[in-house]
Amino acid sequence: MTAWAPSGIGEVVPGDDLAALIAGALDRPLIDGDILVVTSKIVSKAEGRIVAATDREDAITAETVRVVATREHPGGVTRIVENRLGLVMAAAGVDASNTAEGTVLLLPVDPDATARRLRAALSARLGVRIGVLITDTAGRTWRQGQTDLTIGAAGVRVLDDLRGSTDTHGRTLEVSMAALADEIAAAADLVKGKATGRPVAVVRGLGHAVTDDDGPGARVLVRTGPEDMFREGTAEAYRRGWADGAAGVDPRP
Amino acid sequence: MTAWAPSGIGEVVPGDDLAALIAGALDRPLIDGDILVVTSKIVSKAEGRIVAATDREDAITAETVRVVATREHPGGVTRIVENRLGLVMAAAGVDASNTAEGTVLLLPVDPDATARRLRAALSARLGVRIGVLITDTAGRTWRQGQTDLTIGAAGVRVLDDLRGSTDTHGRTLEVSMAALADEIAAAADLVKGKATGRPVAVVRGLGHAVTDDDGPGARVLVRTGPEDMFREGTAEAYRRGWADGAAGVDPRP
Repeated sequence: MTAWAPSGIGEVVPGDDLAALIAGALDRPLIDGDILVVTSKIVSKAEGRIVAATDREDAITAETVRVVATREHPGGVTRIVENRLGLVMAAAGVDASNTAEGTVLLLPVDPDATARRLRAALSARLGVRIGVLITDTAGRTWRQGQTDLTIGAAGVRVLDDLRGSTDTHGRTLEVSMAALADEIAAAADLVKGKATGRPVAVVRGLGHAVTDDDGPGARVLVRTGPEDMFREGTAEAYRRGWADGAAGVDPRP
Repeated sequence: MTAWAPSGIGEVVPGDDLAALIAGALDRPLIDGDILVVTSKIVSKAEGRIVAATDREDAITAETVRVVATREHPGGVTRIVENRLGLVMAAAGVDASNTAEGTVLLLPVDPDATARRLRAALSARLGVRIGVLITDTAGRTWRQGQTDLTIGAAGVRVLDDLRGSTDTHGRTLEVSMAALADEIAAAADLVKGKATGRPVAVVRGLGHAVTDDDGPGARVLVRTGPEDMFREGTAEAYRRGWADGAAGVDPRP
């Protein structure tokens, strides 16, 4: 596997043709099986998802479908929320860096659709069979630091379903579903970096993860609903329980 | 960045000299700045961390420092717990695959210490300045599928502290600490795979992440304690709250 991040994609502004910008910046021709990894920031900018920074808290509220946990700290309140895309993230993915002073960036409207459009446009333009991922950066529970993950996908097997496969001992694998697209997003971030002006990476050598169809997109990476054992923060769940217990209401865990 | 996984590391058994096995399997000479990524399974095996499968539930209990959340399902009970290493994982990281029938594998005793030993042994043997990571596979909250992460590290900047750095607009970066070691673990997993008998990968091209000192190890990637907003599962926290509320105990969120 080889990964690199071409330079030469300048500042992206609303209305820009991302496929044309990316194609123009590629320093080597793409080949069949390459995966193009695109930072969501430039998708947001091309889509004009820029709002005044004075509305940052309003923007977070507007992007929020469900509050998962909040915490007050000296600088304000951290809100971990589920956003329109089903992603659970701090500040709903609203980003105050990587945009002009006085503005904040919202996440793209529909990153899976954007990934499909980019794939179609670049495949037609360059005559190659590639996959496209759109990525963002997020913190994790129980781990320090942030990693990149995939919020939009086309033509990439996002989950590698190993259920039923066997290991070298002939035993069924306990680890059953590798989140390929998130691992590719992480690999790409290692060459893109955060502040280097290289918002796109090419990952080569994972042709087995590139599919003919666009596939189901990054939506299938989202796990919420009854399966989610952490749908509320500890403090929030406790307080809800305490109120119910004090009121003599039947438990609703 | 280039990553590949040499073949030729056979079945590892207790007492094996991992540095010798890895050095013998390398298909290309390592160079300064390379990062060697080692699956924890072979460390566990070399350390003899193998117990009878009949004791699997006992083994999980023994590895558990704190239960975070449990859930019953038709096949048994899933336990998300904090283990001795501070890692919050399903089944405390006890793995029933990748080991002989009738046995399960525990995580290595002290992966940071193992990473330091491997680094010293391989640096001396091969005459190169490399970093070493030991990785395991884990699920994530709110995301489907598993990714690899780092549980032991030596000579690698595990967190890239960007606080105070500025972006291309001169604005302070919101994303402030990249979990480099976890992103490298994910990249390495893409070339190792789960069932291919390639438990070691070389990641080349990230020399800026390799340090002279062994550094603090993977322990600094662990975030538990007061900062942890998800120290209990939602159902667990709710039930504790309900009981306290019903008993008229002051809230202890």
